[in-house]
Amino acid sequence: MNYGFVRLDGCMADDLSVVNSARVSFAKSSDGIDKAGIGLINFLMRERHGTPFEHNSFRFHIKCPLFVAREWFRHRIGSFNEFSARYSEVPDEFYVPKQEDVRTQAGKPGAYTFLPMDERTSIEVSGALEDVNNYCYQAYVALIDMGVAKELARAVLPVSMYTQFYWTVNARALMNFLSLRNHQSAQLEIRQYAKDVEDIFAEKMPHTYAAWAINKRVAP
Amino acid sequence: MNYGFVRLDGCMADDLSVVNSARVSFAKSSDGIDKAGIGLINFLMRERHGTPFEHNSFRFHIKCPLFVAREWFRHRIGSFNEFSARYSEVPDEFYVPKQEDVRTQAGKPGAYTFLPMDERTSIEVSGALEDVNNYCYQAYVALIDMGVAKELARAVLPVSMYTQFYWTVNARALMNFLSLRNHQSAQLEIRQYAKDVEDIFAEKMPHTYAAWAINKRVAP
Amino acid sequence: MNYGFVRLDGCMADDLSVVNSARVSFAKSSDGIDKAGIGLINFLMRERHGTPFEHNSFRFHIKCPLFVAREWFRHRIGSFNEFSARYSEVPDEFYVPKQEDVRTQAGKPGAYTFLPMDERTSIEVSGALEDVNNYCYQAYVALIDMGVAKELARAVLPVSMYTQFYWTVNARALMNFLSLRNHQSAQLEIRQYAKDVEDIFAEKMPHTYAAWAINKRVAP
Amino acid sequence: MNYGFVRLDGCMADDLSVVNSARVSFAKSSDGIDKAGIGLINFLMRERHGTPFEHNSFRFHIKCPLFVAREWFRHRIGSFNEFSARYSEVPDEFYVPKQEDVRTQAGKPGAYTFLPMDERTSIEVSGALEDVNNYCYQAYVALIDMGVAKELARAVLPVSMYTQFYWTVNARALMNFLSLRNHQSAQLEIRQYAKDVEDIFAEKMPHTYAAWAINKRVAP
Repeated sequence: MNYGFVRLDGCMADDLSVVNSARVSFAKSSDGIDKAGIGLINFLMRERHGTPFEHNSFRFHIKCPLFVAREWFRHRIGSFNEFSARYSEVPDEFYVPKQEDVRTQAGKPGAYTFLPMDERTSIEVSGALEDVNNYCYQAYVALIDMGVAKELARAVLPVSMYTQFYWTVNARALMNFLSLRNHQSAQLEIRQYAKDVEDIFAEKMPHTYAAWAINKRVAP
Repeated sequence: MNYGFVRLDGCMADDLSVVNSARVSFAKSSDGIDKAGIGLINFLMRERHGTPFEHNSFRFHIKCPLFVAREWFRHRIGSFNEFSARYSEVPDEFYVPKQEDVRTQAGKPGAYTFLPMDERTSIEVSGALEDVNNYCYQAYVALIDMGVAKELARAVLPVSMYTQFYWTVNARALMNFLSLRNHQSAQLEIRQYAKDVEDIFAEKMPHTYAAWAINKRVAP
Repeated sequence: MNYGFVRLDGCMADDLSVVNSARVSFAKSSDGIDKAGIGLINFLMRERHGTPFEHNSFRFHIKCPLFVAREWFRHRIGSFNEFSARYSEVPDEFYVPKQEDVRTQAGKPGAYTFLPMDERTSIEVSGALEDVNNYCYQAYVALIDMGVAKELARAVLPVSMYTQFYWTVNARALMNFLSLRNHQSAQLEIRQYAKDVEDIFAEKMPHTYAAWAINKRVAP
Repeated sequence: MNYGFVRLDGCMADDLSVVNSARVSFAKSSDGIDKAGIGLINFLMRERHGTPFEHNSFRFHIKCPLFVAREWFRHRIGSFNEFSARYSEVPDEFYVPKQEDVRTQAGKPGAYTFLPMDERTSIEVSGALEDVNNYCYQAYVALIDMGVAKELARAVLPVSMYTQFYWTVNARALMNFLSLRNHQSAQLEIRQYAKDVEDIFAEKMPHTYAAWAINKRVAP
């Protein structure tokens, strides 16, 4: 089951902010994006002048499994506020992979590949995950019913549980996130969220996005 | 002479972002600010829960003397792009204090007070500063005319020269800036800019501003 | 069961670094801590001049339950590297509270109090948590044995599982951590770790620690 | 005249910290650097896994011209405390380039080259800079003697004046600094300081340094 989403809650983001914050070096500014502006964005990206890409802001509201959120929160340049299992009861929402997402792993650290498992095994695995989710959630509810503090009762919940958070981030940090998390070496589950983030970024800052994409998706 | 300004170039800033990023702790959100929302902002400020104040962004374009900019750039949580005296010729724009801003200093480090100087001295001081500015700028122009690299020629320019920059910052870091730079212990010249920044902040996030003001202007 | 620890792996930390980084304002330095130096540390702490407390470094190696680590990793000023359940099999190590740490909660968000539960209930709760840990770990081992990728199999593990990480941090950020995490409003489990961190900090920078303690434990 | 220096005031820095903070991913650690450890450092650098390079710390004491310091302080990941011209009288120490460092500039932004000037011009330029320094410093002393506040009097001092500061930084941020500031596109004057910083880094973390050097000096 999938309860997740990526929602843009607000933004101050356009390509012009890149151009104008760069042109302040020359005490100049533009009213709009033209060919010279696009060329400047490409130059800045290629030469890895990163700071002009910071003068914008995206505020996302995200819901995803906790093991995905844990990878997300490693990105320190940005702001987070998250659902609290100390303050609120956790709802009955847990991740179970779709059959085609059940996988085995080959290779070694730094060079993993993942292969789909046969249909029968995949069904069995999904079922086993669902069973654990149900078992743990029942244990959680029972502890809550006994009066155990929420902050302690949540200890029985698996990392497949969904959480939600606000994330505010600028384009430079966002490109770094996408470089790592929408990459073939990223875990499948976070990658699916990162793809949605990337679509939003591409829509709001198309010239910046294009420049990043052709420069091997390396954050400047 | 005063060539300075504080200009808001863009923002994504309202009180609602504080409320909603805090309420995600409870998986809740609001469509607008009501009495409960204002109460929550006050609670967060008083208890110094700082992160909900980060989900917003102000992009300023600022022109000020270099000795003011140097204090400004010490604030690391935020983004800067500045005029470059390596890339561009510096214009003939230098700070000279108004007569009433010429001052002497009493007290010791950590407990300075500043007192205005008598009219005659103030005029003399302003004149002396203007003379230095003119002398240095002529030397700069002469070096440029001789073909000296701009990055080296600028070495003769005094810190009274004007610079300009883009600054993008969230409300939490902005409140920290204002706590320090619009404070009686701050230097007069930066304080005048900080006041303009404060007015803009107060207009965009009035409930956050009010809560900060009554909580001794301490950033959460 | 408790598998946790706080271990200082290395440090560059003494009170003198605070004094000398502050005295560079006056182009002065000292060879050792004397009465004037202690006075300066107290002045800096009281007036919240924070930057001189950053010129030092503590590298900790920590092992703790995952729900404790999640709170820890919210502290962005510092460096983390953690055990990876993508790369390694998770060992059979899970948190179970001691009987006296089983608790119920009273009050409301922002003003919780926690009360111990009666002996019989506490024993029952501890037993329930241990059962869940065992059930989940068996499910995890079964999935691994079926060939499921570690990164997916770990989805069934509860947040009571132990993790370990390196954490490198300066005294200013450390004091902020301690203000929040060794505080009566912090969760009991992280507070126990924060106490160990605090002891190490107090030993390495005794004058800084004393100044912080008498200034209401507010990070400068 | 050159009053500048780069002095290592303290450090917690070795290659082993990189290896062990990376190996915590596998719950492993080493007592020393061996061939596998060196290989791991190279792998981390090449694949741009940056965080293991953060668990160390260098504290530098630096004295340099103000226009050099301004570029230095743009590096936000790190800690600074600097000489204050608000609190202390500025000494009579100003940068004058050596004759061979007087230069003209060719090319355009992003692709500058610098060429030495002829001997006669170089001598003339150095003399002009020295004249400005002397003129400004006399103006400064006169203002101080009149009782003008130090924070205002310093407005007449050119950016060739020397300042000094403490800088504490980890190896990851240090490599980023060196990538930009000991690079052919960096200004000559900061590059000379960056070279000294680089020598110290190379001595303390030789395997990390070597790995960075062969990976095109790109910070991971």
